[in-house]
Amino acid sequence: MTAVTESGFRERAVAARAAGKELAAAETDKKNNYLNALADSLEARTDQIVTANGRDIAAAESDGLGDHIIDRLKLDADRIGKIADDVRHVASLDDPVREQIECYTRPNGLEIERVRVPLGVIGVIYESRPNVTIDIAALCLKAGNTVVLRGGREAINSNKMLAGIARDVLESSGLPADAIQFIDTTDRAIVDEMLKARGLIDLLIPRGGEALINRVREDARVPAITGGIGVCHTYVDDAADLEKAVAVVVNAKTQRPSVCNALDTLLVHERVAPTYLPPIARQLTDRGVELRCDGRSLAILEPALGGSQLRAAGDDDYGQEFLALVASVKVVDSMDDAFDHIDRFGSGHSEAIVTENEDTSERFLSTVDAAAVFSNASTYFHDGGEFGLGAEVAVSTDRLHARGPLGLREITTYKWVVRGDGQVRN
Amino acid sequence: MTAVTESGFRERAVAARAAGKELAAAETDKKNNYLNALADSLEARTDQIVTANGRDIAAAESDGLGDHIIDRLKLDADRIGKIADDVRHVASLDDPVREQIECYTRPNGLEIERVRVPLGVIGVIYESRPNVTIDIAALCLKAGNTVVLRGGREAINSNKMLAGIARDVLESSGLPADAIQFIDTTDRAIVDEMLKARGLIDLLIPRGGEALINRVREDARVPAITGGIGVCHTYVDDAADLEKAVAVVVNAKTQRPSVCNALDTLLVHERVAPTYLPPIARQLTDRGVELRCDGRSLAILEPALGGSQLRAAGDDDYGQEFLALVASVKVVDSMDDAFDHIDRFGSGHSEAIVTENEDTSERFLSTVDAAAVFSNASTYFHDGGEFGLGAEVAVSTDRLHARGPLGLREITTYKWVVRGDGQVRN
Repeated sequence: MTAVTESGFRERAVAARAAGKELAAAETDKKNNYLNALADSLEARTDQIVTANGRDIAAAESDGLGDHIIDRLKLDADRIGKIADDVRHVASLDDPVREQIECYTRPNGLEIERVRVPLGVIGVIYESRPNVTIDIAALCLKAGNTVVLRGGREAINSNKMLAGIARDVLESSGLPADAIQFIDTTDRAIVDEMLKARGLIDLLIPRGGEALINRVREDARVPAITGGIGVCHTYVDDAADLEKAVAVVVNAKTQRPSVCNALDTLLVHERVAPTYLPPIARQLTDRGVELRCDGRSLAILEPALGGSQLRAAGDDDYGQEFLALVASVKVVDSMDDAFDHIDRFGSGHSEAIVTENEDTSERFLSTVDAAAVFSNASTYFHDGGEFGLGAEVAVSTDRLHARGPLGLREITTYKWVVRGDGQVRN
Repeated sequence: MTAVTESGFRERAVAARAAGKELAAAETDKKNNYLNALADSLEARTDQIVTANGRDIAAAESDGLGDHIIDRLKLDADRIGKIADDVRHVASLDDPVREQIECYTRPNGLEIERVRVPLGVIGVIYESRPNVTIDIAALCLKAGNTVVLRGGREAINSNKMLAGIARDVLESSGLPADAIQFIDTTDRAIVDEMLKARGLIDLLIPRGGEALINRVREDARVPAITGGIGVCHTYVDDAADLEKAVAVVVNAKTQRPSVCNALDTLLVHERVAPTYLPPIARQLTDRGVELRCDGRSLAILEPALGGSQLRAAGDDDYGQEFLALVASVKVVDSMDDAFDHIDRFGSGHSEAIVTENEDTSERFLSTVDAAAVFSNASTYFHDGGEFGLGAEVAVSTDRLHARGPLGLREITTYKWVVRGDGQVRN
């Protein structure tokens, strides 16, 4: 296997940059052939991956890590097959590199073209799931970028094996193995180095919990895109269709409560709260959701549902990302009241309204400031795949460069290409 | 006049953000009416501006500042008229806000729209020229952004007057005066505050010299776009047309030597150096350019031109932005040799080739990594106006968000708007 030697961050970032020129110039077919060969190799080397992963699982068990963490760590033939399929899917996507964004001729005859080019070296800091190693590497490579990966300590053996395979296949595909760099030490000082690596990293993407995201926001001296923290509201308007409101709220909260686009707070217009809240709440509590209610919603729900999954909301229950089967509930006087609440407590990730009134809907969509706003649809749709981008590296709640899902285009930049015939400027 | 009271940065940034909602929602006509009224008011209040400016000029003179700084500071009726015309031009440009970037319907019936929205609060730190106060405020306002301006100490009285007028006209136009904030103290600690103002500033743009740019690059904890430092090369290929080479090189170096897109280093292919260098160099020296030459170019030029404007290049003469009638010269063995030189010494701003060979030209344009690359055209064309963007806030040499000229679109972001009919995700 291509050596992934023990060494520091700096020399890996330098090696990644040196490999960048060749990768930026690589033809689409060559990159796609690489990705398909990588998928095949992952499947062919399933046993090796499972063995390496077993060491991580054993360490996690002896460290007494919880079952859900161990489940996230675990790789088996099925999961490896799924990773391989995702890589094949990336191969099938359009190559963003060399895409012409615009092209026009100026009155002086200059032809001005804006063309997409790779960003350069992308640094990624991520936590436990080992599939991220391959997912991110595949997307970065497809967009002509090289990548420096720093995964979580728990998955070190799995990640090392996966990155090693990805490098092996680069070499056998005639691409530079150094395009994928994996930091194979778990030294936390490396994270600091990455945060401060001006000139070595062109874009840093953290994928993990709030502590990691906040650390990058506070300390990064390299360009970074952060996101993934979603305090998401769904506002049920007084002109909402009840059936749609139930479906949208239940889906946003319960379909996958552990993700950032899941509903955290349900806001209901006071005019429909007495009739709409009980059926919505019942569907939620039937699915195991605990509801943390303001006084008005509690007064409606306690008589209707009984109290076992209801409690009074505390100060922390608004503005909190639950990532679990918990939601806070609040009755609002009006949509403007909902706006104030979202302004104060939202994280700019995903916000939704349910209403049959088109004017109200449009006012919500234009007024609420978030990466994605939804009318009569579940916030759980906030995802690169669901938006038709094919895949995503992360979801941005930043305002610069890209907002919402980061697909292949969003991990590129562009340059201006000007073709003349000897023109000069007065 | 609307008060521009003495106060700190933080409360101004908060006031700017509070004004942001109204401005983001403002109709295009209302913003354009504002800009036209601002232009009229600047002209009508020329005497007041000139008087305020006179205080800055007097202070500069008594401080013994150089003539070129005093010239940059100076405002008279002509220059004020030019500023007003630029504001009217901004009014004439397309409004980027609410522009639909894309819109499509997914198989599940969800309508996905990506729509341009303002970035938010833009902080600008700039140096001596007072016209920047109005130029930047007009562009930010047109794009729906509010702005916090921190100008140079030398222009404090002029800037205060100009910002006051801009605020007055906001008020009389029915827009929030707080959308334009001017920091009217020259306390340097304010710059630190701006650099660290996470959550208060959505984008920081420094406009000034290398020291300011580097400080922002090192210390900014808010999203910033930097640029404006151009170490620009023009490579004269062995297949260049001599006449075009002379025209392009002379224009890039001498038309406006003090700007970032001016030529710094001339690279000439060794095969044509003996015949091409003397006529190109003569045109440059005739216009007062001092040439700092490597050994090979000096050996060609000294016998041909005599030595009065020639000297041997020192270590610092490559990779230096001269901003003056000085250029370094180097003979290269090949285009690949030119690539190596540009890679090592360029700042990723503007790079040009002169050649009649189309394959060579395309290889240069695709290989050289810079915000703008030119074939058979002067790097002096690297400008928002010349590229057809209408105007520019700055030129970015960063890779994230925007590269090259920042026009109106480049000071916006976007959001995803999803319209459904009760869809949920499985």
